[in-house]
Amino acid sequence: MSKKDHQLHKLFAPRGIAVIGASSKPGKVGYAIVRNLQSSGYAGEIYPINPKAEQILGYQCYDKVENIPPDKTVDLAVIALPAAAILEITKSCSKRGIHFIIVYSAGFKETGPEGAKLEAELKEFCRENDIALLGPNCVGLIDTHTPMNASFARSFSKKGNVAFISQSGAMLVAMMDMSELLELGFSHFVSLGNKTVLNEIDFLQYAAWDPNTAVIICYLEDIVDGKKFLDIAGSISLKKPVIILKSGSSSSGARAASSHTGSLAGADKAYSAAFKQSAVLRASSMEDMFDMAAAFSNQPLPKGNRIAVVTNSGGPGILTTDQIEELGMQMARFTAETSKELRNYLPYECSVYNPVDVLADTPRERFQFSLEKVINDPGVDGIITLLCPATAPPVELAQAIKDTFEKYPEKPILSAFMGGEEMQEGISLLRKAGLPCYSFPERAVIAMNGMVKYVQSIEALRQKNIHRKKTSVIEGLEETSYVNNMQKAQVKAIFYDALKERRVVLLEHEGAQILEAFGIKCAPTYLAKGPEMAAQIAEQIGFPVVLKIASPKILHKTDIGGVLVGVDNTQGVIQGFKDIIQRARHFLPDAPLYGVEVQKMMPQGTETIIGSSYDVQFGPMLVFGLGGIYVNLFEDVSLRLAANLTEKDVEEMISETKAYRLIKGFRGKSPLDLQSLKEATLKLAHLVLEFPEIKEMDINPLMVYEKGICAVDVKITLSHEINIQQQPVEEQKELLIDQLAERRS
Amino acid sequence: MSKKDHQLHKLFAPRGIAVIGASSKPGKVGYAIVRNLQSSGYAGEIYPINPKAEQILGYQCYDKVENIPPDKTVDLAVIALPAAAILEITKSCSKRGIHFIIVYSAGFKETGPEGAKLEAELKEFCRENDIALLGPNCVGLIDTHTPMNASFARSFSKKGNVAFISQSGAMLVAMMDMSELLELGFSHFVSLGNKTVLNEIDFLQYAAWDPNTAVIICYLEDIVDGKKFLDIAGSISLKKPVIILKSGSSSSGARAASSHTGSLAGADKAYSAAFKQSAVLRASSMEDMFDMAAAFSNQPLPKGNRIAVVTNSGGPGILTTDQIEELGMQMARFTAETSKELRNYLPYECSVYNPVDVLADTPRERFQFSLEKVINDPGVDGIITLLCPATAPPVELAQAIKDTFEKYPEKPILSAFMGGEEMQEGISLLRKAGLPCYSFPERAVIAMNGMVKYVQSIEALRQKNIHRKKTSVIEGLEETSYVNNMQKAQVKAIFYDALKERRVVLLEHEGAQILEAFGIKCAPTYLAKGPEMAAQIAEQIGFPVVLKIASPKILHKTDIGGVLVGVDNTQGVIQGFKDIIQRARHFLPDAPLYGVEVQKMMPQGTETIIGSSYDVQFGPMLVFGLGGIYVNLFEDVSLRLAANLTEKDVEEMISETKAYRLIKGFRGKSPLDLQSLKEATLKLAHLVLEFPEIKEMDINPLMVYEKGICAVDVKITLSHEINIQQQPVEEQKELLIDQLAERRS
Repeated sequence: MSKKDHQLHKLFAPRGIAVIGASSKPGKVGYAIVRNLQSSGYAGEIYPINPKAEQILGYQCYDKVENIPPDKTVDLAVIALPAAAILEITKSCSKRGIHFIIVYSAGFKETGPEGAKLEAELKEFCRENDIALLGPNCVGLIDTHTPMNASFARSFSKKGNVAFISQSGAMLVAMMDMSELLELGFSHFVSLGNKTVLNEIDFLQYAAWDPNTAVIICYLEDIVDGKKFLDIAGSISLKKPVIILKSGSSSSGARAASSHTGSLAGADKAYSAAFKQSAVLRASSMEDMFDMAAAFSNQPLPKGNRIAVVTNSGGPGILTTDQIEELGMQMARFTAETSKELRNYLPYECSVYNPVDVLADTPRERFQFSLEKVINDPGVDGIITLLCPATAPPVELAQAIKDTFEKYPEKPILSAFMGGEEMQEGISLLRKAGLPCYSFPERAVIAMNGMVKYVQSIEALRQKNIHRKKTSVIEGLEETSYVNNMQKAQVKAIFYDALKERRVVLLEHEGAQILEAFGIKCAPTYLAKGPEMAAQIAEQIGFPVVLKIASPKILHKTDIGGVLVGVDNTQGVIQGFKDIIQRARHFLPDAPLYGVEVQKMMPQGTETIIGSSYDVQFGPMLVFGLGGIYVNLFEDVSLRLAANLTEKDVEEMISETKAYRLIKGFRGKSPLDLQSLKEATLKLAHLVLEFPEIKEMDINPLMVYEKGICAVDVKITLSHEINIQQQPVEEQKELLIDQLAERRS
Repeated sequence: MSKKDHQLHKLFAPRGIAVIGASSKPGKVGYAIVRNLQSSGYAGEIYPINPKAEQILGYQCYDKVENIPPDKTVDLAVIALPAAAILEITKSCSKRGIHFIIVYSAGFKETGPEGAKLEAELKEFCRENDIALLGPNCVGLIDTHTPMNASFARSFSKKGNVAFISQSGAMLVAMMDMSELLELGFSHFVSLGNKTVLNEIDFLQYAAWDPNTAVIICYLEDIVDGKKFLDIAGSISLKKPVIILKSGSSSSGARAASSHTGSLAGADKAYSAAFKQSAVLRASSMEDMFDMAAAFSNQPLPKGNRIAVVTNSGGPGILTTDQIEELGMQMARFTAETSKELRNYLPYECSVYNPVDVLADTPRERFQFSLEKVINDPGVDGIITLLCPATAPPVELAQAIKDTFEKYPEKPILSAFMGGEEMQEGISLLRKAGLPCYSFPERAVIAMNGMVKYVQSIEALRQKNIHRKKTSVIEGLEETSYVNNMQKAQVKAIFYDALKERRVVLLEHEGAQILEAFGIKCAPTYLAKGPEMAAQIAEQIGFPVVLKIASPKILHKTDIGGVLVGVDNTQGVIQGFKDIIQRARHFLPDAPLYGVEVQKMMPQGTETIIGSSYDVQFGPMLVFGLGGIYVNLFEDVSLRLAANLTEKDVEEMISETKAYRLIKGFRGKSPLDLQSLKEATLKLAHLVLEFPEIKEMDINPLMVYEKGICAVDVKITLSHEINIQQQPVEEQKELLIDQLAERRS
């Protein structure tokens, strides 16, 4: 693909720009934009549009965009006019053949219903007329390679290979300003604004393609199209590291949930799961994001997680060791040869193990010798150097680091120079050479950890992709047709019955039927409408059984004496049925009673929970963890989005929990049937992807045995928004009607 | 107390200083010290000691310290000579009447056995001759108020109120250098070196007393006298905030442990517990420590945890909100009046709720108005201001913050100014005015959180102290004599028997007797030597019972069929006894068998664990948490050092665990007997403080019931180092012999 091929490329490198709302008055946005385009060295033509001015900053003005002579190529229009004027101007641009537009103006949906209406109209027009619009309500766009500053921010960043896509304009400007201080170079900046037409997905894809970009960093408050994100983010990560700082974790806790799974899920966790499944690094702060960007921008990726520390002071060396281990990396173990060579060369007081302590009085030679030995040790994947004020000038030691890296550019070196003014020259020397240098050791460790985690997560993603191609898990399940249309129709029929009765919480025997339809083994559960029927069922499924009141209005069955466990004979079932119904009538005289559900009592196994909660952005999210009554106490759960889930993901998901240790055989016990558990989880993923109308569901407990699993208690809640007219779908209606007839008979 | 009164004051403000090993050659330590003393503006006399020089830097030299004329006052000698010469020179100093010495020289215990010997001799001499020696192997000491730079570090810090005590000399120098950049002023710096005589305890006490110090920060690799630390640190915290950065967390995981408690404890956790119990803030990184120091140094303490954010950009505002809540602080809720006044004044697009967003184009007036309204809201305890590049110059907005703080100096304001060069003047203006300003919002949040946590923890400590005075818990228990000498003797007798038999792991019935002696209710457990005796015991304690093989060599009793539960009749006990013995003989023919322990089977309760593990620094450390077989799976535990433990500490300790939610009544169940649990924990604390020879002990499970508790399984391991000659102590020997006789009969 040639550089010109990407559909958004003209937005980043237009051949001519119309500045609509251009102004000759300093202080106005319309002035700042012309000035910024000019001062950024933009080489194309600039056409200020202003009916009252002749010239602005030396460029000839036009009264209307339509009046720019037709022989002039105008790829991009940037607009700084009041919100009310934007739609008409956009139409004019479209007429003039301009397909790329940046709108800076505020006054849209962020201001209320009127602005939202304006924005909706704008969006519709753009969609219909194939207009790629950035904004409105944004700071603009900057490309340091074109070069072009199509923003109203004064400054222009250092040129480099980091793309920054930001939902906060102010943060973008701050970082652009900071880039000089940090010697961190950017390829382009995008201020997303209201994301009316173009959104983060478009710009992630552009940055992935952009040959000038090597690292992508994003600040996001939300993701507009979660499912698309899941489809594309992984492949972008495989090309370039993507670091996302996502805000809003605190506001997502308030979600009301009717199930365990629901209360354990939550929107922010869905984002985390989406990032994890896509090998996207989630930054936990602005500082972390920029510190990681500096490392990725210039340094090679480490091949593994074994880190060596070379320091001229013991204390910071120990702190760095602590943190390396705390973050899950390893302190490298040197070969005997490295240790011997260091021992032979270094003064007796130096530590020749990791961290290597070359002492405060280190001359340049000693420092460089140690660094070279360490970087060449095959057991070392990355190096952190630490410097406190030393006898040798910091600039000499910085030079030693630079020389070593130039000689051996295969492994990343991150540094922390601690001190005052006298450190600055050395720090600057390193940064200019593309060697990140931080003020404190912990910053270097966090950045190194980002690189290590990226390498690990893309490796895992590659494995999953290979695996997916080989086995095509989710699709594979479909292909093998273990769930055929007949079985899907069974599920729909159950939903249909529930919705007809305006129930959104399914009864247990209905849940069991749904699971069985998808091949997940369940404790046999049937609805008995009378005591004799209950007895018959019990005899058929075998004793002992559990009896449970069946009513859409009774959610806490135990509280009203609606559950009887361990009933082991016919007479007990008959009497139990009557007792349960009587108690229910007594406590809740108005509740509709469907009868009593009779469930075969299953042997005790290890209790786990699997469930799903529907996330508005990303679709169904699965939960796995320790089950039983203490689920919410232990919160030992792991989450994954169902979309594109592979068996490897499920394996990973299970292995992140404490429940996994029980499954592997805790304290000498026999291991349990992990394979059946994984299959059940994948089948659940299939079920909830097939039926997005399942808002929440819990299987708790899902008993895991040495051989096999069994779902014992199934709770399924359908979405309130489900429209009965949509279900059943046309082509299966007939089948469904047959099914219904069969079930009713 | 007058300033001159503190015993270490002459070390920080000596009236005359002898520089032994002074040199006239730049580059030598002995030169640097004289130069530093001179350039720091030290006002006392300086006496370089150098037999070969006439004068150094204008000061008259002496050949020996003894030859400084007797009419000259010399309070301090600083020594830069090889290690081998230090002891003799110290003796000379002592003869000259000098009681304060700083030794810079390396070559002591850090270099091996020979150096350790030198150091031990030096230590002994100092102790015997009342010499307060700092070092050896240190950078020295600096007091900015005296002023005096008695270190070999070139730079001299900005004067201020932060004391820095550091076990890393290099870190100290780095921070001294950084102080100018950060505008952070220090009162004094102490480089601890090998801590041969003076250690962190001495300097913590000095800093607590020092009128020039308001905040104490420490970098420590260990604490020499843990028990003393526990005695004094709390009272220091009540006077001044103490922030400690303790390294070495990664090396402490390797400890071998024979009990649950032991494996859950570990040295680094003991440090954390010690800090927590003393209201000391534990910093997690160098940056956190210094960012917190900047806040404490100049700002008033917040009265609570309700934080307001005033920002000119939305994105950083949301990130800050996330982090405030994540760290356990609260976003302040404004009064209706504040919101109304903000609404009336601010443009429509501004957010008038917390975070208050005054927009990027904020003029100074708007920013200051908002800040003043917010700081005066009674629901606000602290303010964080955030600034991204704005229309108004940052220096004007900095001035607005400064003016607001000067008008309303009751609440802390921390700021983050994000951006490049153009922010620097504003940042500098704030810092000079004592208003900490950070580069990223998360730094401000961490610093604010440090202040909030300090206020909360000293309040808790005050409550505990009041409580302790009122009830004198541990001592109180002693006073009420619920454990009398007779009962202590019972315990000692059991230890005596075990040690005679070279057992360090006690049998269960022994453990039960020990607990009973200290008033902790236990499942009745007795040793039966034959089947009939077992039957008798069972009949006496009541059925059902549990039978367990009793052998010091059989630790995993269940594995060899050595445990029988639920035995509910006499015949069963007799047969069970025989079966257990037979199986033990079969599997472990050489194990000595003491018989079978018969334990009353207790009703099922909520299983908790309480235990203790002896920490070499801090003495016994208690563990409380969820019990049962999954203790190590859940690791739901909370730790406290037993020394000075109050009922409040125990309450806090229990409430930190998930087990607490079960005890309070999980999901509608009845609450359990928290009071009995607390009492049992306090009694356990008493036991392990009384008997430090208990290396580790577990009570797991300790059943907690709606009424009462019961220890079911008790495992006590004694220290290997215990010397049988020390036990029993002389004055109780007779009593013990009686006891022994009684037990044997």
